[in-house]
Amino acid sequence: MRIDILSVVPELLDSPLNQSILKRAQAKGVVEIHVHNIRDWSKDKFRKTDDYPFGGEAGMVMMVQPIFDCINDLCSQRKYDEIIYTAPDAPQFTQKVANELSLKENIMILCGHYKGVDQRVRDYLVTRELSIGDFVLTGGELPACMMTDAIVRVLPGAMGDEASALSDSFQDNLLAPPVYTRPAEFNGWKVPEVLLSGNHAKIQEWQEEQSFARTAAIRPDLLQD
Amino acid sequence: MRIDILSVVPELLDSPLNQSILKRAQAKGVVEIHVHNIRDWSKDKFRKTDDYPFGGEAGMVMMVQPIFDCINDLCSQRKYDEIIYTAPDAPQFTQKVANELSLKENIMILCGHYKGVDQRVRDYLVTRELSIGDFVLTGGELPACMMTDAIVRVLPGAMGDEASALSDSFQDNLLAPPVYTRPAEFNGWKVPEVLLSGNHAKIQEWQEEQSFARTAAIRPDLLQD
Repeated sequence: MRIDILSVVPELLDSPLNQSILKRAQAKGVVEIHVHNIRDWSKDKFRKTDDYPFGGEAGMVMMVQPIFDCINDLCSQRKYDEIIYTAPDAPQFTQKVANELSLKENIMILCGHYKGVDQRVRDYLVTRELSIGDFVLTGGELPACMMTDAIVRVLPGAMGDEASALSDSFQDNLLAPPVYTRPAEFNGWKVPEVLLSGNHAKIQEWQEEQSFARTAAIRPDLLQD
Repeated sequence: MRIDILSVVPELLDSPLNQSILKRAQAKGVVEIHVHNIRDWSKDKFRKTDDYPFGGEAGMVMMVQPIFDCINDLCSQRKYDEIIYTAPDAPQFTQKVANELSLKENIMILCGHYKGVDQRVRDYLVTRELSIGDFVLTGGELPACMMTDAIVRVLPGAMGDEASALSDSFQDNLLAPPVYTRPAEFNGWKVPEVLLSGNHAKIQEWQEEQSFARTAAIRPDLLQD
């Protein structure tokens, strides 16, 4: 799989894309991640990519031309299954979307910055818009990193232990059960007896009960899907 | 305001915390951000902070002791208003939460990693749990950066233009209206006439209509709050 990320502040993406699982997945050839600086497609001598909004609002807007040229350049080199724009006012990115995107061959993620992109980019150039949540950030760079992380994590070979991703929250619409590690007692706080019992059937039963109870208590909406 | 972030992979946080608005806000003294490596509190000679889970599941669990000692150390130096744990199985972080947290003096954000922290950390040490969304990531580092970004963005003095943050999505439970910048026509795609009219009353009316229509179409749930 190949992921291309388009940004006006590519330096923001350096450390998140080059550590931990994403670093190992790239080293193992599970995924190729390419970051592009949209300024490289600017026709302005100061490599400007933003301008004042029509209508006199506060904030700056990302211009169509550099994004248009960047996307066209990439699309002339290979076929993209999705051109995603990260925006707060879009459908939510979920584990289901991550799983679905992990089956694609080439995807592009365009990071909004400042006040966002010129609406014509959204209307004519991107194929899908995704939001990370109901809050506003400086830019779409962190959301792009998070989407990349969630997608790559489920690619075969990305994680050392395949079973680990499958027992994570949301893969079965249930939150994960609580986890504990040594010591069995710390500061007077004890690990539940059942986990120390060695009885695997009982442990699994307890974990399923806990998963269900936690989901019902914290996120009952997940049980209704 | 002061934000302390606790992580086992602090290098992941480097670039997101030191660019753009977060960089400027720190330089202007609007916020102090301190990153702590939990390994510094490990008593293991290899600075180990994780161990196998009780019950024999896949994945590793973050141990209580290093986190306990790190939190105690910080709490002995100043009073923290919240000790937040980033987890997928927790209430959602929203703009409302960001606004609320921006009024605090000192907050701590503990990043989960691997399979998460020993449940005793969640039961006894943290004061609040927050999730970024319904998906699983390698760790809580990116969510911690995003929460920091969303919180700092609304602090007085963080942004060059105060009016800009106020017109963002979610500050009034409405999505932002579409934005456009020059040129008025690109590749045959035109900017809506009204925005070029210079009639500010009409422009504002159009923007409000657009905000409402977009919210009703994409996120009707926001209108019910």
